[in-house]
Amino acid sequence: MTDVLLRGGLPWGLGSPADIHVRDGLIHRVAPDAEVPGAQVIDIDGQIVLPGLVEAHCHLDKTLFGGPWVPHAADDTLAGRIGDDLGRRAELGVPSVARIGALLERMSAAGTTHARTHTDIDPQVGLRGVEAVREAAAGSPVEVRQVAFPQHGLLTNPGTAELLEEALKSGVEAVGGLDPAGIDRDPVRHLDLIFGLAGRYGTHLDIHLHDGGSLGGWELELITERTRALGLGGRVTVSHAYALGQLDEPYQDRLARGFAEAGVAVATAAVYSFPVPPIKKLRAAGVTVACGHDGIRDLWGPYGSGDMLERAMHVAYRSTFRRDEDIELALEAATFGGARALGLEGYGLSPGDRADLVVVPSGGPAEAVVVHPARTLVMKDGVVLHN
Amino acid sequence: MTDVLLRGGLPWGLGSPADIHVRDGLIHRVAPDAEVPGAQVIDIDGQIVLPGLVEAHCHLDKTLFGGPWVPHAADDTLAGRIGDDLGRRAELGVPSVARIGALLERMSAAGTTHARTHTDIDPQVGLRGVEAVREAAAGSPVEVRQVAFPQHGLLTNPGTAELLEEALKSGVEAVGGLDPAGIDRDPVRHLDLIFGLAGRYGTHLDIHLHDGGSLGGWELELITERTRALGLGGRVTVSHAYALGQLDEPYQDRLARGFAEAGVAVATAAVYSFPVPPIKKLRAAGVTVACGHDGIRDLWGPYGSGDMLERAMHVAYRSTFRRDEDIELALEAATFGGARALGLEGYGLSPGDRADLVVVPSGGPAEAVVVHPARTLVMKDGVVLHN
Repeated sequence: MTDVLLRGGLPWGLGSPADIHVRDGLIHRVAPDAEVPGAQVIDIDGQIVLPGLVEAHCHLDKTLFGGPWVPHAADDTLAGRIGDDLGRRAELGVPSVARIGALLERMSAAGTTHARTHTDIDPQVGLRGVEAVREAAAGSPVEVRQVAFPQHGLLTNPGTAELLEEALKSGVEAVGGLDPAGIDRDPVRHLDLIFGLAGRYGTHLDIHLHDGGSLGGWELELITERTRALGLGGRVTVSHAYALGQLDEPYQDRLARGFAEAGVAVATAAVYSFPVPPIKKLRAAGVTVACGHDGIRDLWGPYGSGDMLERAMHVAYRSTFRRDEDIELALEAATFGGARALGLEGYGLSPGDRADLVVVPSGGPAEAVVVHPARTLVMKDGVVLHN
Repeated sequence: MTDVLLRGGLPWGLGSPADIHVRDGLIHRVAPDAEVPGAQVIDIDGQIVLPGLVEAHCHLDKTLFGGPWVPHAADDTLAGRIGDDLGRRAELGVPSVARIGALLERMSAAGTTHARTHTDIDPQVGLRGVEAVREAAAGSPVEVRQVAFPQHGLLTNPGTAELLEEALKSGVEAVGGLDPAGIDRDPVRHLDLIFGLAGRYGTHLDIHLHDGGSLGGWELELITERTRALGLGGRVTVSHAYALGQLDEPYQDRLARGFAEAGVAVATAAVYSFPVPPIKKLRAAGVTVACGHDGIRDLWGPYGSGDMLERAMHVAYRSTFRRDEDIELALEAATFGGARALGLEGYGLSPGDRADLVVVPSGGPAEAVVVHPARTLVMKDGVVLHN
């Protein structure tokens, strides 16, 4: 038996200080004034304790993290960024196991214990991205789940569908989609194809949807219908979902009810000035909301630090959340919401949960988000990684 | 004579490494491989050197910085925030010389050398805010310029106009305004009053304008007309100017041309999800653009760190600036743009300029904004403050 006692911290949600007794990788007991003979004792007086942070939407395979600064060179269009990406990734050695590893190290130091990453799959790169992420993740304490992502089109890019299937056969945990209307031009066939794959291989499904306004709203309806019809509730996420932030309130309400009932989650990154889904409304309707960085230091943009508390700050800030309980909704997205979207088991701060813990030198959860100071301690499966 | 030699840095805009020789508080010479016998030599190999950061819009008098976390308690309306502010500032000891001093210390450590702050003036608080800011600033290396700010109404709050005038007589450097239409209900009289004060006392003028759409656009016309008619060019700033980010392009263009010609500057804070003025368009038209935090950890909202490079990141991010030269526009707003808006003399990185310098451990200006790492060195008037 190995015992660790985190003493005097404030487990998020408990409302008062308590000691967390970790035994053999699990949370054994949460109680004030615990005494555990022989345990390693770590004093974290008055600091907030969170469950491991969950990065629910990133693109590890694309990252240039840890290398020299690479000025962004694409013009200001989606087509320009796609072309720049295809043209320069070879020159810059993307995907790079070393770069992905550097980013995972940074993410772990900031308390991320789980990440879902959308890995480019197309006839040019094949499954090299999948393999690079797998290799980097094998050397990292961050548990990484991949989404087989048709970044450069699915129906419009012959050979991609077969590669997606090959990726799933190789163990990739989720199938991805990308603007079934706006980019792939045939939303019904696009969605039928990826929902079919998810059903057949028993995987999750995570669909990038930048399409805005009524077009995006209608695609959200198609996704909800298919999730319900195929019984895939709890395994489907829509990422970005800009349309949700643009539609009128009655339509938002209708979509939110549909998501909650069918089991469709929403992942937001709150990037740039793009619309952020109405998180408060979604949560009130019972919809799972997760969040992530989107790209981190890559050919699509130079921003992103890998720190999920900083990302939660962006989500809260763009949502104009000022009150503690509202800011905590962003933190929920970066923790429990992400865990639900990814289908993590044994996640949380209760006895029996895996001891994936983050200690932040803040007196409360809202302050931890707003200030996002360097982490005092990160623990994965009971092992102290950073202290 | 005191001589300091900053060796091997990358002065922003120079394009190659150079040593900066500082003599008696001024930049004496910028050249490669300088030798200055007897000088204090500081090696800053390959790090970017910026002029002192300029915080062009904050509210020092309101801050709770450095104290315990205070959960935001106002409801989600402007009226709610005004009421909460009036009701709780006494209870929380606002304005507080200690809190303002703590924030100025943080700002200075992050490289801010000059700040313009809007200080509440109303019959309840009188000039106590002005005095508190003055006292805190006297003990800080940050040069602080105040704006006499009618936060709680001007025409609608009897006694405020007289207090503004009293503040100007006491040496406050600028007169403020606040939504002449939306809040004060009489834009023509409001503007005539504050422009009259600025003209009579020879001060700057900095007007908060949250009013959006065509109403805000029309008020921007009124401001431009008065600046031109009274010859106040170079001394007038419009803060926030949300309308600029909402109007159609031809109207934006027309207003931008008017600002450039009349000498009206724009200060943005890029807060929450509120519209950000079209910085690239404004700069292309020749308009001075500055930036600042707006509130920092106060009763109006819990966000803000006091770090102007982080703030420039928000400005660039919300402007969807990805390319280095675009990101540098945000940095320009946090440096030279702010200096022009505030009317600073001897500001810059050229021989003869005051030696207000910031060294950032980044290889270039865009990276400095995106990553905003802790500053390596801050110098004010030739004196090393943080190293």
